[in-house]
Amino acid sequence: HRPWGSRLCLHRLGDLGQLGGHTAPSDTTLACHFPHPRLKRSRLKVRFCTNESQKSRGELVALLRRLGFDISQEEVTAPAPATCQVLEERGLRPHLLVHDGVRSEFDQIDQSNPNCVVLADAGESFSYQNMNKAFQTLMELENPVLISLGKGRYYKETSGLMLDVGAYMKALEYACGIEAEVVGKPSPEFFKSALQAMGVEAHQAIMIGDDIVGDVGGAQRCGMRALQVRTGKFRPSDEYHPEVKADGYVDNLAEAVDLLLQHADK
Amino acid sequence: HRPWGSRLCLHRLGDLGQLGGHTAPSDTTLACHFPHPRLKRSRLKVRFCTNESQKSRGELVALLRRLGFDISQEEVTAPAPATCQVLEERGLRPHLLVHDGVRSEFDQIDQSNPNCVVLADAGESFSYQNMNKAFQTLMELENPVLISLGKGRYYKETSGLMLDVGAYMKALEYACGIEAEVVGKPSPEFFKSALQAMGVEAHQAIMIGDDIVGDVGGAQRCGMRALQVRTGKFRPSDEYHPEVKADGYVDNLAEAVDLLLQHADK
Repeated sequence: HRPWGSRLCLHRLGDLGQLGGHTAPSDTTLACHFPHPRLKRSRLKVRFCTNESQKSRGELVALLRRLGFDISQEEVTAPAPATCQVLEERGLRPHLLVHDGVRSEFDQIDQSNPNCVVLADAGESFSYQNMNKAFQTLMELENPVLISLGKGRYYKETSGLMLDVGAYMKALEYACGIEAEVVGKPSPEFFKSALQAMGVEAHQAIMIGDDIVGDVGGAQRCGMRALQVRTGKFRPSDEYHPEVKADGYVDNLAEAVDLLLQHADK
Repeated sequence: HRPWGSRLCLHRLGDLGQLGGHTAPSDTTLACHFPHPRLKRSRLKVRFCTNESQKSRGELVALLRRLGFDISQEEVTAPAPATCQVLEERGLRPHLLVHDGVRSEFDQIDQSNPNCVVLADAGESFSYQNMNKAFQTLMELENPVLISLGKGRYYKETSGLMLDVGAYMKALEYACGIEAEVVGKPSPEFFKSALQAMGVEAHQAIMIGDDIVGDVGGAQRCGMRALQVRTGKFRPSDEYHPEVKADGYVDNLAEAVDLLLQHADK
């Protein structure tokens, strides 16, 4: 009996990326007890799927390695590189309203004479002046294209709650009368690009995450099964969410890996 | 035959306020040829109904007087004083995210230990820091109340299009999962407060404005009739607007006054 029959594990570093990026790790045991080596020894494929958009993959991986993760850039699916692929495919030249930390991801992209706006969690760079510049760029286009790296409402820093990219996306959407294209969880395209990078089908994959809507709901809508970990963003009320029901709950990542390995071995 | 049977004229200074506030007057002939004195000599009542939220009424009236308008503060219905009335009636203590120019309107209001946020066109003050402060204030409240002085999408300055308060309202609405209360046109309460200030009923009033939705549509939904002037914000396509049809069109304010006086005299 193999309840998930998984050939691979789509593993999330969202809250770690978030922790690394924005807050002091509230969940460092996750890093210390990280069970990734055991997964690596198994025949399961692993991929890290994050909405982190303030850092380049290089910075993110370096941070995670310092925290004890054995991880390479090639194992990460993140919004900025996924956006670059979209830009190249469609011949789009972006005006960037992004954090300086992630700007290098766009180095290879032609940014002259912009025909779209790419929005990410820009933090302090969300000034009135920069917002107006992005707005004006959109209004000058016949067919304004706004690409948003995620649509998070807010996140927690040590100094308190902070507005995330989704709020500023809504501001531009309203002012321009347009709808943004979101690159990142829970967008189906984003999950699909992760699956594609691994060369597996949705029904063969399991998502593990702490966000009931962004991780669990998003993956399920793509045909994956999904476990919620009771760490990070998790709230007890998530287990009674009106719209999303996880395929299973685990207390932490280690338990999720135990479970997966147990079934993979059978 | 009195097609409008008007006892009064609800007169708008929106685009003048806007011009004065944000741009070089593109429409100064309106001020030079201002027909207000003729209205003043008639038995029609006049009131100025504006969404200007960067200036106090004092500043606004001073500006208009310099442009040749014979106008006093008591003749102006504006979002800031209307908001003060709402705050007092409901015992609300605001955290203000507003332009410094309008702050004095709130001098008499208790702003300690805020239990709501008041948002206006804050211009340069729409910084990431100030937006986070407003957001955090709302998130700390059990029943977050957000009052927005208007919900304009954008306006034009000499330096280009600028985001208006509505865009930032949408950002906070999305981040907090709430809906703002809008004080200003086209909110019915706002028109009603203008009617009340004049002591007349909606069917006795005529709105004259350049904004097909905010002025004409808003007034009509309150039971007023409304003329659109072909100046300021007016665009030829307004005459074929899918949802709002003005009761009449005039080339400018002088023509509107001619028309009103003609019928009032009968």
